[in-house]
Amino acid sequence: MRFQSVKGTRDFYPADMRLRNWIADAWRRVSLRNGFEEYDAPIFEYLDLFTIKSGEEIASQLFSFTDRGGRNLAIRPEITPSLARMVNAQINSLPRPIKWFSIPRLCRAENPQRGRLREFFQWNIDVIGSDDVLSDAECIFVAIDFLREVALTPDEVCVRIGSRPLTVAALQKTGVPPDAMDKILPVLDKRPKVSEEDFQKLSGTVGLTDDQITTICRFQDCTTLAEVREVLGDLDTDDVDDLERLWDYLQAMDVADYCVMDMRIVRGLAYYTGIVYEVFARDESLRAVGGGGRYDNLLEVLGGPAIGATGFGMGDVVLGILLEEKGKLPDLTRTLDFFVIDDSDVSLDQVTKIVAALRSKNYSADFSYKRQPIGKQLKEANRRGAGRAVIVRKDRLAIKDLTTGEQKERATGEFLENPEA
Amino acid sequence: MRFQSVKGTRDFYPADMRLRNWIADAWRRVSLRNGFEEYDAPIFEYLDLFTIKSGEEIASQLFSFTDRGGRNLAIRPEITPSLARMVNAQINSLPRPIKWFSIPRLCRAENPQRGRLREFFQWNIDVIGSDDVLSDAECIFVAIDFLREVALTPDEVCVRIGSRPLTVAALQKTGVPPDAMDKILPVLDKRPKVSEEDFQKLSGTVGLTDDQITTICRFQDCTTLAEVREVLGDLDTDDVDDLERLWDYLQAMDVADYCVMDMRIVRGLAYYTGIVYEVFARDESLRAVGGGGRYDNLLEVLGGPAIGATGFGMGDVVLGILLEEKGKLPDLTRTLDFFVIDDSDVSLDQVTKIVAALRSKNYSADFSYKRQPIGKQLKEANRRGAGRAVIVRKDRLAIKDLTTGEQKERATGEFLENPEA
Repeated sequence: MRFQSVKGTRDFYPADMRLRNWIADAWRRVSLRNGFEEYDAPIFEYLDLFTIKSGEEIASQLFSFTDRGGRNLAIRPEITPSLARMVNAQINSLPRPIKWFSIPRLCRAENPQRGRLREFFQWNIDVIGSDDVLSDAECIFVAIDFLREVALTPDEVCVRIGSRPLTVAALQKTGVPPDAMDKILPVLDKRPKVSEEDFQKLSGTVGLTDDQITTICRFQDCTTLAEVREVLGDLDTDDVDDLERLWDYLQAMDVADYCVMDMRIVRGLAYYTGIVYEVFARDESLRAVGGGGRYDNLLEVLGGPAIGATGFGMGDVVLGILLEEKGKLPDLTRTLDFFVIDDSDVSLDQVTKIVAALRSKNYSADFSYKRQPIGKQLKEANRRGAGRAVIVRKDRLAIKDLTTGEQKERATGEFLENPEA
Repeated sequence: MRFQSVKGTRDFYPADMRLRNWIADAWRRVSLRNGFEEYDAPIFEYLDLFTIKSGEEIASQLFSFTDRGGRNLAIRPEITPSLARMVNAQINSLPRPIKWFSIPRLCRAENPQRGRLREFFQWNIDVIGSDDVLSDAECIFVAIDFLREVALTPDEVCVRIGSRPLTVAALQKTGVPPDAMDKILPVLDKRPKVSEEDFQKLSGTVGLTDDQITTICRFQDCTTLAEVREVLGDLDTDDVDDLERLWDYLQAMDVADYCVMDMRIVRGLAYYTGIVYEVFARDESLRAVGGGGRYDNLLEVLGGPAIGATGFGMGDVVLGILLEEKGKLPDLTRTLDFFVIDDSDVSLDQVTKIVAALRSKNYSADFSYKRQPIGKQLKEANRRGAGRAVIVRKDRLAIKDLTTGEQKERATGEFLENPEA
């Protein structure tokens, strides 16, 4: 075949699209009920917007291009820089806190592999204009509200919570200078994803000594906040207090059973400044389903004010694999409410009138373009995923439930009055 | 300000997004009830897919780029080539007719102007696998079903219907050779959009003589099919018959009051082969709102079988302007069902419990992160677009309708049982 899609992109045939819409609808429903409003930004932006503060990994994965006017542009690999740009542009008129969500299509020039594609959809929720850890707690709550909505239990998934400032404090304690952090944090972020040997090697390349690695690992392996306090001594107690208040909120919000403190969580993006977290399958058999955290400096770096911001992203690819593995995908095969069929002695006109009447009541309804025997039309009704077939006879209708096979006769007027009876 | 969006793209702040969703939801609702299933394709494809058959105009407006693997790619300027590619890839397993719709984001490197942007959304419906003019009629019906859905009347908008083969026949009659058609059709397409003088000039550049132009204009200015027959003589009567059958179907479907025969309609894209049409404001004060037609060769050109195909596209930009001008945009300012407020003597816990209970019933509900006087919280409720404020008191709630100002007391349990009572 001559034409193909590009590797790492997906064609959404109707069955795939129904699943994509089912996920996006749940994201949207959960966002709206939690008081978030939807926004979106352009699919491409000036290249600079994405290179200034997102870190090297994402900058190396950009689809960039130059337009006829010589502008350097790129397809968005994430939406947070666009969000910061938009908020900055209207900072004086937007009431705060700003609680917004989006479901952008994103592109990254990665090597396609399981759970990772070059084009995907990512749910984003953000709260801008609050320094209160309550807003971090609310973002985590919304993530968990979605996990519950799609029936993922605390036995199956969890939110692992770490802290950028505590990780930085632990690194400083071992003698790492402040200007080396941007290089070292992405290496720590890799630790849970690679072998211990590869981690040692990577750590060496960014200048960490064996002693430093040991001390950092001791911090990262803490499983309680009491242990964290012990390892760090009197360094940075405010940030431990923050994690404790976060935990209290998560308990009050009744979602603590989904949460785990885990100092291995660092996040790959450069702009995080506070609490960070990732959503994982409990058995850690897959990449992170999503993740987020506080990014208090990003708006300022992009020319705006210094105000608190925190947020969360969840992609559709790993999520889709997880939902399938755990058997949580719904049956989406019923795609048409009614398929209308003509018995041999009625005209096409009688059929199209009933189809039009059903459609005007917002039922999805269809019919065959070809005049053919009832059996063939019933087959087409099934193939099209219709819930019910409506067989049009001289003066009555036969309504056949295509799931149960049950059939009943109804008068046309009475049927159109209440088609679902 | 340092960072801006690229000219010709749009930021969708929440109010813009609500409008975009309102339009897209109507497109989706109308498509589904007419028996169409949703699909989507990647935002970028191999460049070739878009240059092979869409014509010069669209090829000159591509955002193209080369990825790290040296592949020549482009952001999609339309979705029909991707649709043809997808259908070809599964041609043996897809039951026909294929009735699909999509609401893709598209990008074209045009000069931004009123009604024309570099990034937009376009509703597409297509029927593949039917040669019957009934399928063209159905596409036109669906377009009009949408116009009715958003309350645009036959006095305000109309579908102008022309014919590619009749236009080609009229050109052949004046002596234009077949291989000149691809060059001349786009010029005829421009005629209603430019001055008569500019049209004469453009016609000259593609080699049309004054006599040829006069004859073609006589054909294009026909207002009835009888006139068309007269002008063409016995040339191509089959295609006039097709238009007559189309008209009969449109009358039977009760949408003929929205339709006009108009031989000036040619369409700009190169791949059309049959009936073509465009949706316009009656007063022709704006560009076309949408348009479509039959394209029987496209699948074959892209490596598939020779099967009939017909379809329709409608963008969101001109449509948005038209809906605003005609006063058809809905009031979308109510964005939150409930805003929950604490009276001074209740704890934050009592507030968040009521918020959580409302959210678990799928109502959108929110509260203030800050503890502040009722007056300030009511102001925040209004600013957030809440329909109702819930004021939490020691043992009862006061529910205030923020539209009417009415307030009533309700017991907490009874309220949560039925919040909308």
